[in-house]
Amino acid sequence: MYTKSNCLIAQSGGPTAVINSSLYGAIMEASRSEKIDKVYGGINGIEGIIKGNIIDIFDIPYERIKQMRFSPAAALGSCRYRLKDYLEDEEEYKKLIEIFKKYNIKYFFYIGGNDSMDAVDKISKYAREIGFEINVIGIPKTIDNDLMFTDHSPGFGSAAKYIATTTLELALDAEVYETKTINVLEVMGRNAGWLTASSALVKERLPHLKQLIYLPEIPFNEERFLEDVNKAYKEYGNVFITVSEGLMDEKGNYIGRKENAYHKDAFGHPQLGGVGDYIEKLVKEKIYKRVKMTRLGVTQRCAMHLASKVDFEEAEMLGKEAVKYALFGETGKMISLVRERNYPYTVKTDIVDVDKVCNKEKKMPLNWINEEGNYVTEEFFDYARPLIQGEVKVPMAEGLPYYINLKYAIKKQE
Amino acid sequence: MYTKSNCLIAQSGGPTAVINSSLYGAIMEASRSEKIDKVYGGINGIEGIIKGNIIDIFDIPYERIKQMRFSPAAALGSCRYRLKDYLEDEEEYKKLIEIFKKYNIKYFFYIGGNDSMDAVDKISKYAREIGFEINVIGIPKTIDNDLMFTDHSPGFGSAAKYIATTTLELALDAEVYETKTINVLEVMGRNAGWLTASSALVKERLPHLKQLIYLPEIPFNEERFLEDVNKAYKEYGNVFITVSEGLMDEKGNYIGRKENAYHKDAFGHPQLGGVGDYIEKLVKEKIYKRVKMTRLGVTQRCAMHLASKVDFEEAEMLGKEAVKYALFGETGKMISLVRERNYPYTVKTDIVDVDKVCNKEKKMPLNWINEEGNYVTEEFFDYARPLIQGEVKVPMAEGLPYYINLKYAIKKQE
Repeated sequence: MYTKSNCLIAQSGGPTAVINSSLYGAIMEASRSEKIDKVYGGINGIEGIIKGNIIDIFDIPYERIKQMRFSPAAALGSCRYRLKDYLEDEEEYKKLIEIFKKYNIKYFFYIGGNDSMDAVDKISKYAREIGFEINVIGIPKTIDNDLMFTDHSPGFGSAAKYIATTTLELALDAEVYETKTINVLEVMGRNAGWLTASSALVKERLPHLKQLIYLPEIPFNEERFLEDVNKAYKEYGNVFITVSEGLMDEKGNYIGRKENAYHKDAFGHPQLGGVGDYIEKLVKEKIYKRVKMTRLGVTQRCAMHLASKVDFEEAEMLGKEAVKYALFGETGKMISLVRERNYPYTVKTDIVDVDKVCNKEKKMPLNWINEEGNYVTEEFFDYARPLIQGEVKVPMAEGLPYYINLKYAIKKQE
Repeated sequence: MYTKSNCLIAQSGGPTAVINSSLYGAIMEASRSEKIDKVYGGINGIEGIIKGNIIDIFDIPYERIKQMRFSPAAALGSCRYRLKDYLEDEEEYKKLIEIFKKYNIKYFFYIGGNDSMDAVDKISKYAREIGFEINVIGIPKTIDNDLMFTDHSPGFGSAAKYIATTTLELALDAEVYETKTINVLEVMGRNAGWLTASSALVKERLPHLKQLIYLPEIPFNEERFLEDVNKAYKEYGNVFITVSEGLMDEKGNYIGRKENAYHKDAFGHPQLGGVGDYIEKLVKEKIYKRVKMTRLGVTQRCAMHLASKVDFEEAEMLGKEAVKYALFGETGKMISLVRERNYPYTVKTDIVDVDKVCNKEKKMPLNWINEEGNYVTEEFFDYARPLIQGEVKVPMAEGLPYYINLKYAIKKQE
């Protein structure tokens, strides 16, 4: 017989379509373990946990858990909260340990991106330092796909599928008129071009489409851009331009947001957006009047109705694997995906030291971008194509996805 | 035995997700008639037909026709072209009749919105005037739902479903943080609020959500708007604001586009957009900083991947019925939908004089908007709910919808 203890799961950062699949996987795996008694949820990530905002997941009717599995947006809520270094300020860490003790928590799973992995790193190190026994594992999620030491991150495949589908629909729409249209699509992804590049995945379906893709990995040169667009417009008429929200010029100024470059979010990242407007205006003034600009905004990270099945299943698998590794004694690690091959696509999980992952950004390899810096190479297609495969049958009711906000189905612990 | 003659089908105006269902329905019905020999397609609407841009639809492999049925964007291309009055300029009409004679066309079906119905009216009247025998029938389509004398128009239900689903996803996403978010969603629909109102259809799924909806039917009063938002923000925190691109102030100036109010498209309609930016700025400056604005733009009319089954099937039915009525001898008419009841929803087709329909706009009844002018009443829900029901199983291939641009599968007639 084992001595049973409890586990805690929380979510952090910007949500993805499949962030709840990882939660679902972790809950399911934890609930079948003989070592784990109760499964707790931390509401609003680390920020909420410090405040004692904890729920007992087994209190939630299973019907709601199933519904949550197919819902976008972090079911346990999220935060953008950065723990200070414990050498500077130990207060929050003490509160955390108090909570862990109160609920007899020996396993803590944190589903999130770059900054969440920083929390995993700090908490696991602090616990080791003070001799508190706990296994802390990070479960990756980010539509930006910018986490290091994992082939890709859950959330990316679904966002990529949504962006490619939208590209396809917009490009077809533009082709109905004799009058030509220049489409401008602004895509998320901060400093990594993965999502923006995904717009290229329409290539097989629309081989005739002239696409120009501008990624943050390549400094944006306005003159060269105008040459590209002008040439493409003259040769093809219809042109589809996809730009990353994080485009920067040679000096590192965000395009279209020079005046706002110092407006930061809680993690200290500049808040982006506005590139689309800038590019739209530029093309209209310098090249051609009929420009249609689409800024998908947050829809890219919550379009569960178009989730990729591969992504959905991998997210769940990583949730499960994280629990297995924690039970095996691992801590201060992030669970990761290792691609075995592309055709047919197979993947396995591994585990990496989280301090190698956090506070870094994985960008598109420069040799996956063409020489002109305005499109991607075959390597990118091989990489991204498997990740958008398959559809998730989201339950529907009365014409709309049967989503839930778990918040309204849970009771807080006293 | 009948003497066989040919029919011509064309599409016009802004596409919808299901405009090709009507085309498919018309093709299928025409191809089973003993009176019809060949089915021709007019490329790029009236504008292309005048130039002799005609294809033989039976030349297209049936596999492509099936694929087209599930593709957004007008498969035969579209135009924004307004015929002059034939008393003023008969030239174009003579060319049209020439084409009709050359291809022995006795039936002409025009799938489109308000302005396309104007063409149906003018062509049928001209033909009658000069004694040329042809049956001209209009098949309604518009996401704006602003056509008179039909309960609703194909295209609306699918766009409404897309907008409601996006509202649902964005609202859930905003709820993950403790920090509150004011969402601003800019929706199409020119001078009619139907589409913007559809954002309200999330009510049953998110009963706790505070929504404010501003329609072009109610003059926009900035002071009252700020009061509404301020009150909602103080009471609820998260607020979801949906605004129509066609919002106007009491003097008839488009909100956020005062400087551009005279920028017109080819039909003489002002080109809209910019409301979302204006509202975002206003709320940020006067009420609360964390505002997320989404402008879906053209995606609203081409998101076939989320089409409503009711809409899809009605669009096809109207295509078929138009052919039946034409064969029965009708001309100068628009096929229309008559709702029989809401629960269970049933609908039948009828036919109306097209001159009653064209150049008018059906707006939201004022008593379907609440007294405060910032939300809809139960009547709207009863009306719109049935129209977003059911899903269309769009064929998928390699992770993306298996759409086609028919243009690349057809040969032009000499």
